[in-house]
Parts: sequence; structure tokens; C-alpha cells
Amino acid sequence: MPGSVAALLAEIEGVGRDASTGGYRRFAWTREDAALAGWFAAACAARGLDLVTDRCGNQWAWWGDPDAALAAGTGPGVVTGSHLDSVPQGGAYDGPLGLACALAALDRLRGKGFTPARPIGVVRFVDEEGARFGLACTGSRLLTGTAPPERVLALRDAGGVSYAEAVAGAGGDPGRIGRDEQVLRRVGGFVELHVEQGRGLADLGFGVGVGTMIRPHGRWRVDLAGRADHAGTTLLADRRDPMLDLARLVLAVRESAVRRAALATVGRVEVTPNAVNAVPGRVTAWLDVRAEEEAQARRVLGDLATVGFGAVEESWTPATWMDGPLSERVAARVAAVQGGAPRMATGAGHDAGILAAAGIPAAMLFVRNPTGISHSPAEHAEPEDCEAGAVVLADVLADLSSAPAASTPASTSSDS
Amino acid sequence: MPGSVAALLAEIEGVGRDASTGGYRRFAWTREDAALAGWFAAACAARGLDLVTDRCGNQWAWWGDPDAALAAGTGPGVVTGSHLDSVPQGGAYDGPLGLACALAALDRLRGKGFTPARPIGVVRFVDEEGARFGLACTGSRLLTGTAPPERVLALRDAGGVSYAEAVAGAGGDPGRIGRDEQVLRRVGGFVELHVEQGRGLADLGFGVGVGTMIRPHGRWRVDLAGRADHAGTTLLADRRDPMLDLARLVLAVRESAVRRAALATVGRVEVTPNAVNAVPGRVTAWLDVRAEEEAQARRVLGDLATVGFGAVEESWTPATWMDGPLSERVAARVAAVQGGAPRMATGAGHDAGILAAAGIPAAMLFVRNPTGISHSPAEHAEPEDCEAGAVVLADVLADLSSAPAASTPASTSSDS
Repeated sequence: MPGSVAALLAEIEGVGRDASTGGYRRFAWTREDAALAGWFAAACAARGLDLVTDRCGNQWAWWGDPDAALAAGTGPGVVTGSHLDSVPQGGAYDGPLGLACALAALDRLRGKGFTPARPIGVVRFVDEEGARFGLACTGSRLLTGTAPPERVLALRDAGGVSYAEAVAGAGGDPGRIGRDEQVLRRVGGFVELHVEQGRGLADLGFGVGVGTMIRPHGRWRVDLAGRADHAGTTLLADRRDPMLDLARLVLAVRESAVRRAALATVGRVEVTPNAVNAVPGRVTAWLDVRAEEEAQARRVLGDLATVGFGAVEESWTPATWMDGPLSERVAARVAAVQGGAPRMATGAGHDAGILAAAGIPAAMLFVRNPTGISHSPAEHAEPEDCEAGAVVLADVLADLSSAPAASTPASTSSDS
Repeated sequence: MPGSVAALLAEIEGVGRDASTGGYRRFAWTREDAALAGWFAAACAARGLDLVTDRCGNQWAWWGDPDAALAAGTGPGVVTGSHLDSVPQGGAYDGPLGLACALAALDRLRGKGFTPARPIGVVRFVDEEGARFGLACTGSRLLTGTAPPERVLALRDAGGVSYAEAVAGAGGDPGRIGRDEQVLRRVGGFVELHVEQGRGLADLGFGVGVGTMIRPHGRWRVDLAGRADHAGTTLLADRRDPMLDLARLVLAVRESAVRRAALATVGRVEVTPNAVNAVPGRVTAWLDVRAEEEAQARRVLGDLATVGFGAVEESWTPATWMDGPLSERVAARVAAVQGGAPRMATGAGHDAGILAAAGIPAAMLFVRNPTGISHSPAEHAEPEDCEAGAVVLADVLADLSSAPAASTPASTSSDS
């Protein structure tokens, strides 16, 4: 029997790692990304899975033939998976944990001699973090048609390279990118396992939890215009220094977030020309706002408008509910393994949310994060919790793949 | 007779220009820098000047043989010049105006049949702005030994390329870089013409002014530590967000600058990881402070320390006086041409300041800048003021190169 989840993660621990911080830089369509895709393909081949790369670059590994199952009336397959890319200076678990647990879960099922009645798939979505081109969940958005290909292909990274150029540079065909019906019809349900990005499970004392919803969230850009001037010669009174506006914006954002009980963050800033001896000519700040309710997030933007800051909406994602019947079926397996199944909402976006919004029944499993820290080299999950995730996921996949009726979870959920 | 100052500037207006903003990016030891060095060499060759590149990469074009003049007891030469590199999004005049006026001044003298009794030199200093490696006036600092070569060669640009690698990549020999006695002994006096970087001359109604001193100035780095977290999942109360500290720092800097009658600027900021959906783990800000008196600048740092901001001094340059006798001799020529010679201090550093601090008699001429805007695409000087600069500079060079006694300006200044 192959190794543990921790051993699987160790196989890629060197890819894109910054030796000085321990943080990862695994951006979409880079050399690191290709190395991770190669690792995933090899791991799937070693397990005898059939690998298919869809038009958008997402990799699908199948145990069983989903097209044959559809043709035979067995129904679509059961899929789990996550992503391998990272934010800059990201952690080792956000994304990779879901794929390592998926592979370990399949190993467990095989080790027990289990044979699925319905095909089981493992998917690696590309560019979930959006760290390079600014759009999160790009792979699943393209696959489902949630993001128009022409818009995505024109996005440019900080070095001016377009998404289309990046795909072509990695050997892909940008001309084929777009909604892929053939791939989507194979997916009867999707379960994504992910490291928790808060301290909910740690506080509750459980290793694994079940996702209920992704809170509404959006991104805005605030352009602060000024006038570039020499820092050594321009009188204070003559300056139009947008760095001062940035300072006021950052403080106003925090004040409003506290008042509105929302999460609001200025995490990205670009200063032009960004020279020590120049008053900036322009500062651009990006604002991330999330809340339980859309109205709370909108009130933060209203507060900023009141004090003079106009913001351009770059994205808005309403609250996304996981599929209730599927999630309850998943929760029953979690409870059977660990004696309880905490239900929890999250403020983080996930490919599961994109699939759910596109009409595919989706559920999420979270694995305990002792400190709650994520998007940081300090992100962590204990090996035993990672292993518990694989055990639960194996049970869930066994359950969902055993009965053809799992393709219509709504009809079976009243039992669970 | 060759063209005007404006025509000379037009010859290089396309080099390193950002078509969308009109700003320049002409960093040291880049392709753009090589193109500008090539232009200068060709312009000097067309005028029959002898070009020598010193150990540090500065180019010296001579009318007359300075070594022969020294050997014959005629004394060292008279040098004018400036730089061709720029800050990011810099203007067309900061640097290039001094060299265009130098070439135009030589053309004027030649056109009149003037023959210098002492050699006249035109120098292009490399890397005056320090935009790429963070150290201003690098070429003149290395030449004079003000900056230790081993320290400069180890500086790295934003892409991780060292100064040594950049020099070697441009075909230079980093191993030869260091104080160059042979070159320095040829320079009996240095006059740098520069576009004004404030509105002093515009307010006074003169086209050309004479520099008196470079105000004391320094650069500090402020490291603001936090903890990178997921922007969508980390409670406000659990965050250590250094962007909030940046906001407080920027406002504290401005408040102190007003109170201390200093110029203080936060013009450069680096955010890590600088992702929309991540609370920053670290923000680094650079602080530029200048004042009439060192004590004022130091008080700004004291104010920041009082409110909890520690700053690391990256450079400190005391007040640098231009050579009084030489400057008065220059001022006499300015007054003769335009009926008055405003004396003005500046907050900007210049190669003339480095040479002055190294014991070479130095003077500065400033050309009117209608708006005072500098280090910006909006930097401007009217063509007639540029031409006036060349006329004055020609007169100054004629004066200084006509008498061997100009090598010891102190002995002749009482006449002017």
C-alpha cells in the first residue's frame, strides 16, 4: 500500500519553495505548475487511472470509464479534487492537501478490494488562486463557462504576458479554451477536501468538518491619482501625493469593516513610479470584502464612497451554497468516522463553489488548521488530521460511488 | 552649425519612452542606457572630441588633450556634463538637458572660432538616479571613491541582478571599477547644468540660475512586520496587518514634515505577498527626508521613533556647498547674459555634489522649469530657456578655459 498523505505531500514539497521563507510560489502555467502537473499525472499513472486533460487545462484522472457508465445508464461519475497552484508565499496545504487525500483515499479503497459501481474521478483544477492573472478559480470558471474565454485569454500578468501566451508557452492550445460539455456531463457530484483557513475546527475539537456555504465576496480596485514630483524639491503644499490617500483609504477600510462586521482587506498595492526620491504619481489599491450577507459588504463600499473613495468592482460572487442533500450524505460519513460533523461556512472561494453555481451538486470537507493561518508559509495541518481527511474522503467516495442513485442526491438524501 | 538644444534632445526622445505615459525608463546598464551611451559617443565623434570611458563606465569627451596640458603646466581641464539615465517614468530633461546644452555650447564656441587655452571636457556620468540599484550618483561615487566598489558591485536590482553582473552584461569590466586618479586629475573644475526641480526661477522670472548648495538629505527604510493570512477567513481581531502600520507611518511622516519644516516622502513601498486575497505578511517603506538643516531632518526621524516607527538609515548626505569662488565666477557670466543671476539651493542630489564633496571645485547652473514638476513625464523646460542655458554655459566654458589661472578659481574670484 502506498504511503500516507504526508508522504504524498512530501513528494512535491520542493517545487516552487522559497528556501528563505518556506513559502511557495506556484503560479499557473509556469515551470513549477508544469512540474506539479507532471507529478499528478505520474501519480495517477502509477495507480492505473486514465488521465484526460480538458480544453481548459484541468486534469481528470478516472477509475472506471465515465462515458461508458453514462452510455450504460449507470449515471455520471463521482469526482473529488482540488488545485496545486499557490498564492505568492503560500502554504503547502492549500490545494495540495485535497489531491494528496484524494490519491490516498483511492489507495485505501483499492487496498480494501473495493470496486466502485460508478466511476470515480480525481481532478486537478488549474489556476485556482488567480495569483498570476488576478482571476480566482480560472480553470473551473473556464470549464463551466462562468468566465468568457476571450476575457480570460486577454488577462496579463505583472510581466505583461497574456493568459493566452502563458497557455501556449506551456504547450497548451488557447484556441480550444472554453466550456467543455463533454467533460461536465461526466460529473454527477463533486466533493472538494481543503485545509481549513480559519480556526473553526481547532476551536470545536474536530479533525474534519463539512462546508455549508461560501460567503459572498468581491474585489474592488481603487485608483488614487496624484502627480509625480521630485521628493527633494517639491514643497509639501504643492504636492498631490496619492500615498496620503492610500493611508486614509486603508484606515477607512478597517474602520468600516469593524462597524459593518465584515472582513475587508487592502492586500495589494501598486505604486508608480515607486522610487524613493519621487512623490508617487499614482497608487492603485485592491480591496477584498467578504461578509455573511451581501448587504454588509455593500455597506463597506458605501462607507468608502461617503469619504470620497470611488471603487471599481472587479468581481462579485454572491453567497454560494453547497448542495444540501449531497452535503448531508457526506456529513453522515464524517459523523460515522469521528463522532460528529461540524457544519461550517467559509470566506474563501473554491472551485467547488464555481461548480455549485454552475449546477453541479458539490460538497466540501475541511481539515483542521491548528492556527487558522493560511496563504502563508505558517499554514499547517497535523499529519493525523491529514490522514483522517483521507479516511473520511475514502468513505464518502465509497458511499457515493456504490449506488447509481448517487447521481441524483436529492432523491436519496431524505434517508441520511 | 548643428542644431538647437531642443533638436539634440529630440535625437534621443524615443529611447526608453513609455508610449502610453510619455515617461522614460532609462536604467543604468540596460539596453536603453547602451543606446544613450552610443548616441553620446557618436555626437562627440561628430564634433571631433576624444572619448575616454573611465574604469567606472563614465564617458569623458575632450576638446584638447588634458594629459598634455597637465604635462605642459597649463593646468587641468574644465569639465561640464550630467547624466542620461532616468527614474522610472522620468522626464526628458533631468540629465539629458545638461549634456545637450554642453554639446550645443561647444558648437557655439566652435562656430565663433574660439580656441580654448585649457582643455574642455564633457562627461556623461552613469547611474545618477540610482533607480535600478538604489544608490544615487553611483558613477561619480565610484569614480571618487566615495562609495566602496565591493559594496556597489554587490547591490542587486529588483530582478536579483547584481551591479557587477549588470556591468559585465553590458560589456564592462566590474573588476576595474574603483577610484580613478588618472581621470580625476584632469578635472580642474566642474560645472553641471540641470533643469530646475522646483519653481524658483519661474517665480523669479529668470531663465537660468546658479546653485549654492545641496541640502542635507537621507534615505531610511522602515520594515513593518505582520503575519500573512487569508483575507477571506481571518478575523479582524486575529490579524497582524502591516498595511495598517503603513497607513499610520505615512500620516505620521507628513505630520512631522509639516511641523519640522522639512520635506519628507514615502515614495517607495514593497508589499509581501501583495495579493488581493492575502493580509500582507510584511510591508517595507522607504523614507526620503531633506531639510535646510540636518537637525530638522533628524527631528523627523525622532518624531517617528516617538510613535513607534524604527527606521534604518540607508544613506545620509550632509549639506554640500558648491565652490564659492567658482560659483561667483559662473554667476558673473550668467548676470552678463540675462541681467541677473539668482542663487538657489536645491534639495536634489547631483554628481556635482559628489565631486564637490571629493574636493573638486564644482558649480551648478539651473534652467527654468515652468511648473517645477520633475521626476515625472510632465517635467518641462521651454526651448528658449534650454537655448539660454547653452548660451550661458558657452560663456562660462569660454571664461574658465581661457585662462590657466582658472585652475585655481580661488585666486581669481576676488575680481568678479
